Amino acid sequence: MELTSLKEFIEYSFFEISHGKWLSLSQITYTDPTGKERTWEAVSRTTSQTGSDAVCVIAILKRMLKYDCLVLVKQYRPPMKCYTLEFPAGLIDPDETATTCGLRELKEETGYIGTLKHESPVTCLDPGIGGTTCHLITAEIDGDIDSNIHPKNKLGLGQPPIQAFMADMTATAKTVN
Amino acid sequence: MELTSLKEFIEYSFFEISHGKWLSLSQITYTDPTGKERTWEAVSRTTSQTGSDAVCVIAILKRMLKYDCLVLVKQYRPPMKCYTLEFPAGLIDPDETATTCGLRELKEETGYIGTLKHESPVTCLDPGIGGTTCHLITAEIDGDIDSNIHPKNKLGLGQPPIQAFMADMTATAKTVN
Repeated sequence: MELTSLKEFIEYSFFEISHGKWLSLSQITYTDPTGKERTWEAVSRTTSQTGSDAVCVIAILKRMLKYDCLVLVKQYRPPMKCYTLEFPAGLIDPDETATTCGLRELKEETGYIGTLKHESPVTCLDPGIGGTTCHLITAEIDGDIDSNIHPKNKLGLGQPPIQAFMADMTATAKTVN
Repeated sequence: MELTSLKEFIEYSFFEISHGKWLSLSQITYTDPTGKERTWEAVSRTTSQTGSDAVCVIAILKRMLKYDCLVLVKQYRPPMKCYTLEFPAGLIDPDETATTCGLRELKEETGYIGTLKHESPVTCLDPGIGGTTCHLITAEIDGDIDSNIHPKNKLGLGQPPIQAFMADMTATAKTVN
């Protein structure tokens, strides 16, 4: 099916309501194709550069005679006030590509050395509330090579704990739920 | 693999930096298990109620002699300053369950009447920047019944346009990219 062309929206103004250290809140005023003026509120990262903000790494751990596992991380997320299970993820440094960042974050957060399978186009995690963007990096981990036998994460000094969690792919939904 | 228990984080204070009409920006101060005080910034929806904020609907359109299709919607997203392709989604009304909301949003945004296959536990779309939560609703659409032959979306009066888009599942990644 073809995507028929939709008419243009015109941005009218972008007003920053509040500027925090890491996040800012803005009000966007725009005109829709019927000529109606509308407003929207959006959050953005103050650390945003050109390109994408972050990566999210979908990594499969493959080992001889074991079920393939999805590699997740457990960490405390202050906005959620609890520990979460997530794909390894992180912000892209100024000098990095999305893939370099993804494999670095995977190593830092789980200890595993992965190889790239696919890098997605830039996507948005929650376009209703903000324009923070992310690449999905798909990676494979050979769990039988020496460096991946006893993986140990390498978090920065004074960084809060992150724990790697291997979810058996034959029962991932059950395990995660 | 067992998830070993991680120590507790203690929330210390929650300070609202800015309160918009739909979103608010806050600073959270908390103490990590080592006793170190940390701060984090988070966005939240001012419309949040108890339970989850939103639903996201993964719906498969099934028709005789046609490839199964993933049902997506194309709409303008002011924070992204462009049109996006997304799963049908929306905010849960105060008197609704997540499933009722999911099937309502699917009908409103695409015209299709779906049946529930699965409702996920509550999840968070972007836990790094906020605590806005979402249920993933998996649905199936029988595209051969009368009411689903010529689906027509029913958007509220004056709502900006949303266009349904059927992505052939044998080539979804290619189509979407």
